[in-house]
Amino acid sequence: MIRFNNDYNHGAHPEILKRLVETNGENFSGYGTDPWCERAANKIRELTACPDAAVWFFPGATQANFVTIHALLGPCDSVIAADTGHINAHECASIENTGHKIQSLPNTDGKIHAEQIEALARAYYEAGEPEYLTRPSMVYISFTTEFGTLYSKTELSAISEVCRKYHMLLFVDGARMAYGLGSEKNDLSLEDFARLTDVFYLGGTKCGALFGEALVIPDPKLSPRFKSYMKQSGAVLAKGWTLGLQFATLLENNLYVELARKADAYAMEIKEALEKKGISSYIESFTNQQFIVLTDAQMEALSKDFIFEYTLKDGDNRNVVRFCTAWSTKAEEVQALVKAIEQL
Amino acid sequence: MIRFNNDYNHGAHPEILKRLVETNGENFSGYGTDPWCERAANKIRELTACPDAAVWFFPGATQANFVTIHALLGPCDSVIAADTGHINAHECASIENTGHKIQSLPNTDGKIHAEQIEALARAYYEAGEPEYLTRPSMVYISFTTEFGTLYSKTELSAISEVCRKYHMLLFVDGARMAYGLGSEKNDLSLEDFARLTDVFYLGGTKCGALFGEALVIPDPKLSPRFKSYMKQSGAVLAKGWTLGLQFATLLENNLYVELARKADAYAMEIKEALEKKGISSYIESFTNQQFIVLTDAQMEALSKDFIFEYTLKDGDNRNVVRFCTAWSTKAEEVQALVKAIEQL
Amino acid sequence: MIRFNNDYNHGAHPEILKRLVETNGENFSGYGTDPWCERAANKIRELTACPDAAVWFFPGATQANFVTIHALLGPCDSVIAADTGHINAHECASIENTGHKIQSLPNTDGKIHAEQIEALARAYYEAGEPEYLTRPSMVYISFTTEFGTLYSKTELSAISEVCRKYHMLLFVDGARMAYGLGSEKNDLSLEDFARLTDVFYLGGTKCGALFGEALVIPDPKLSPRFKSYMKQSGAVLAKGWTLGLQFATLLENNLYVELARKADAYAMEIKEALEKKGISSYIESFTNQQFIVLTDAQMEALSKDFIFEYTLKDGDNRNVVRFCTAWSTKAEEVQALVKAIEQL
Amino acid sequence: MIRFNNDYNHGAHPEILKRLVETNGENFSGYGTDPWCERAANKIRELTACPDAAVWFFPGATQANFVTIHALLGPCDSVIAADTGHINAHECASIENTGHKIQSLPNTDGKIHAEQIEALARAYYEAGEPEYLTRPSMVYISFTTEFGTLYSKTELSAISEVCRKYHMLLFVDGARMAYGLGSEKNDLSLEDFARLTDVFYLGGTKCGALFGEALVIPDPKLSPRFKSYMKQSGAVLAKGWTLGLQFATLLENNLYVELARKADAYAMEIKEALEKKGISSYIESFTNQQFIVLTDAQMEALSKDFIFEYTLKDGDNRNVVRFCTAWSTKAEEVQALVKAIEQL
Repeated sequence: MIRFNNDYNHGAHPEILKRLVETNGENFSGYGTDPWCERAANKIRELTACPDAAVWFFPGATQANFVTIHALLGPCDSVIAADTGHINAHECASIENTGHKIQSLPNTDGKIHAEQIEALARAYYEAGEPEYLTRPSMVYISFTTEFGTLYSKTELSAISEVCRKYHMLLFVDGARMAYGLGSEKNDLSLEDFARLTDVFYLGGTKCGALFGEALVIPDPKLSPRFKSYMKQSGAVLAKGWTLGLQFATLLENNLYVELARKADAYAMEIKEALEKKGISSYIESFTNQQFIVLTDAQMEALSKDFIFEYTLKDGDNRNVVRFCTAWSTKAEEVQALVKAIEQL
Repeated sequence: MIRFNNDYNHGAHPEILKRLVETNGENFSGYGTDPWCERAANKIRELTACPDAAVWFFPGATQANFVTIHALLGPCDSVIAADTGHINAHECASIENTGHKIQSLPNTDGKIHAEQIEALARAYYEAGEPEYLTRPSMVYISFTTEFGTLYSKTELSAISEVCRKYHMLLFVDGARMAYGLGSEKNDLSLEDFARLTDVFYLGGTKCGALFGEALVIPDPKLSPRFKSYMKQSGAVLAKGWTLGLQFATLLENNLYVELARKADAYAMEIKEALEKKGISSYIESFTNQQFIVLTDAQMEALSKDFIFEYTLKDGDNRNVVRFCTAWSTKAEEVQALVKAIEQL
Repeated sequence: MIRFNNDYNHGAHPEILKRLVETNGENFSGYGTDPWCERAANKIRELTACPDAAVWFFPGATQANFVTIHALLGPCDSVIAADTGHINAHECASIENTGHKIQSLPNTDGKIHAEQIEALARAYYEAGEPEYLTRPSMVYISFTTEFGTLYSKTELSAISEVCRKYHMLLFVDGARMAYGLGSEKNDLSLEDFARLTDVFYLGGTKCGALFGEALVIPDPKLSPRFKSYMKQSGAVLAKGWTLGLQFATLLENNLYVELARKADAYAMEIKEALEKKGISSYIESFTNQQFIVLTDAQMEALSKDFIFEYTLKDGDNRNVVRFCTAWSTKAEEVQALVKAIEQL
Repeated sequence: MIRFNNDYNHGAHPEILKRLVETNGENFSGYGTDPWCERAANKIRELTACPDAAVWFFPGATQANFVTIHALLGPCDSVIAADTGHINAHECASIENTGHKIQSLPNTDGKIHAEQIEALARAYYEAGEPEYLTRPSMVYISFTTEFGTLYSKTELSAISEVCRKYHMLLFVDGARMAYGLGSEKNDLSLEDFARLTDVFYLGGTKCGALFGEALVIPDPKLSPRFKSYMKQSGAVLAKGWTLGLQFATLLENNLYVELARKADAYAMEIKEALEKKGISSYIESFTNQQFIVLTDAQMEALSKDFIFEYTLKDGDNRNVVRFCTAWSTKAEEVQALVKAIEQL
């Protein structure tokens, strides 16, 4: 069976394991106060053109999401997110567990837009900031989204402008940042994210690392005691150097984006094969996640040799499924899938 | 410089890295639903003689602590702990952050005793369970304690009895479980922990793993939706098999305890050298952590070649410091330290 | 100016003040352990035909809502409510502040229906109770709703059945219970609420009291330490007898429902006058709250002598406003309003 | 039976009930936006010499405590309090329920002192503000304390100075503020509290009102959205004018302090009688609460005609009990008690 069900079903890029082995005899200072974390943080500061940025390494993305929101919002502040946003739909109310309301907006292909956000914020201020409503104080978006779609520079700039107008922080969940940066349709750079948003992260878990996310706060004055919030939620790894080492390895020599670029290209091959066969996308994506609509027979046929994710039933004989490529996907796996699609 | 400052300054036992490398080409189901986790859980069920135990793998100990307490207590329940307990003194109020009060008791050598616990519980019930007090609903202890000390089977049995009498759960933080099991003075087995307590864990981070703690709930009915609590706090690792693989490696062939037994024995060598030299313990320990009292001159002399942890100033010319051995400590490092002690 | 803007703009029914004055020289035991609370609780047990019911007196409704939800749900449980529900739209995220997600459903005239609720619950169980979703564990509805509408016995029974099928508690916010019971269209009794739901309250603040809500838990085993939850959130009034006294006064001799019946009848007079004038309801209500659509000119004309609540702009020259009668509304005030409507 | 068990066993000062009756036919704007609240707030601004102070009316003291602490602290901030402080010992972990740790200090006669506070704060900063500790960000004290004792101007000034030095807010629980102000030994004024602290309140519940506490934030910029926090916790009363009316009544013509001065004087009569009889104080108090040590026989004798509060057993034949006078205590009640003491 070949797995296309997600982008976290393999270990880590071999270069990472190699370095873990090489450094296994060395000793390090704990809790992220080691040279590897410093080296990775500096590389990120360079890539984002933010020499002063605060950079924090999290073991996982759910932690990165709720710790950041808990640290940056007050108890009566809420966060705006797409109804399909990961924090709203896949994290067992981790945000509400920290005491915050999510104000969800209906998504379009997984995205929310500046106009929607502005309407919500304006309504709050036009009503006179009533005490019985939470203040919309942050906007959370994902790049790439749950459906693999991308925000364009124009879209992100518009959202950024609304956020600044209404004193809302802009937070980008970058669990799949690499696959966004690597897409042929992408026009955003890490420098853009640093310029247009207040906090974002570079996902490692889904993009070549064993685990880990690198959070960037371009303006370090935004949260002077951020590490305390991490500690309080158990997000400071004792052997923090294992996170620094992984990100240093991925980010130096551009491995991070190159791996994703290849995975995105594989996804485009699969997309092309599907289109040729007349199989439609549920939502069109130019990154590693492809959501497509299969008939019952097609689904059964592909299930023989491939593992993919069943997402939802979209009417009679219409099954929405997800095929995911990843940094670990091999050319022959893609060829096998393309061939199987051709033979449907 | 040789590090004796803590037991988490090296990567992982080589056998673990070897297996990570060997399996790096394989693919796995995510979030702990893989064969490695099953294999490790079964091994733990065998070692604890609890064929039905729920076993959960956490990335880190702070998470294991607060998620467990949050999952098992109601909002008006409190947890009893030593004032020096890790949850009370080292985790930035992670327990209070989940809404629970810690009722701290004065420690004796890092431990609390059945009599103290019973007095607290009895006072609550004798007062008629007043609504303005939280109910003491759990007792949290550590094995080994923050000072490296051990609960004996007699002591643990007495605490267990009080807990059952007053309907309190007994939770053992086992971040250093291995060093307890490996001590020459220990008379407790994993089966005893499973029999006498309600939830406990086998620490990996400090005992040979890259990261990870294995939590055991002998009676799985105690928390039927435990994984939701883990998910909500970001404690379910995407690549969960890396946790299962580590614990399977450590627990099969008894590597876990053997590594700790060696580290404890090294600590005894150091202890003996100190005693010969007339350097006293701050608190006597028979495990890998040694808290000793050095003069200013002694401290300065040892600082030349060794890194150790400064703990507190205990009066003029009396410095309490910690020397820690670990699974990764080498014989020649111990010899060097013993020699340096002899030359003080 | 005559106030029709809400149902809490006057003090208390004179009988209540009379008793407060009469008993002012007496002394009482504190925190609700007094004879007045016992007397009121017993009256409620009689009216609901629940001799064993737990009855708790809250100072206010927001407290009654969040304390009840916090006490009865676990951290990974969510509560289902209408998007317009008071807990979702008017209480500054008090529920999320206790850590719980509200799963909001689109309302129809302020109500949600058994089919919607069942669909949501079924989806959760059909998906296999995934750990990344909260469990829907409670349904919150209001009687009367935010729009003054009523659940029928058939509707409430259907919701109750779904709740029992899916192990969800049914909680009725009864801040305006009296106006529901007093409506000519109502077919539900307090006995029905006790039989069909798990927890509900009789609002006092809007129905003749100075302040206070009486919460009923028909099965007292549901929350044995409920008073602790109240205490923790500051909902146990020191001079608790003032709550008991008010409810005893309102509930004995049926004053509670009689006051509301009169207010509802006044609202029907106003409704009739509006209909004669061709002014349409925004949502048709048979209780004390009337939501109607006024032109700009009509709104301006009525604003001269009356205070009412502006709710929303529903398009050009369409203003949705609320007129509220109350236990304190006088016949001459209604006549003045009816006359003013006739003269529009 | 004559009640001396607490200071909240009677309704309200007759003048308050009179005004409630007088205004019962009037209508008011809700949620504290009425002329009575404005009038009371202005009176408080005048009495505290803080023309810009924010003044908020709470239904009860537990709410005032936890809402204030929740509003003014961040998630990793802790509050310093006496171990006997009301928030630490009598409110069912309401502070922890909002996510904050209480750092308790051993009390001396119910008080904590500047030196203790400074030592705690200094230790945190000397340790380098480690991420695993919460930041001490607020000091909570009570005036009068749980034992009826008073902070002197010298003591409060010293605490204030430490707070400013270490960027901690100073919060005074004034549930019994009146009895402090009315004591013959007191040298603090409301102006002093406004000058030396950051937030404090004037208790109503125990000092002549039916219910209610008036919170003062001298610098309104400290918490610009404070009412949202109140709303979120259900602390904004719908009929808020009942709070304003009570405080206006108590504070105009100095009734508030005069009532307490009388109660304190009664307590001094009782104290004198006890001393004459050789009955010792457990802790010496010059306000309305008297904690004394009775033999079993004395306790039994006094129990025949008086209700008082049993506090603790202080050894064989030593019972610590509390006698409380209040604004509602009558001269003849005190005479009866004095006589009974003389006859012991």
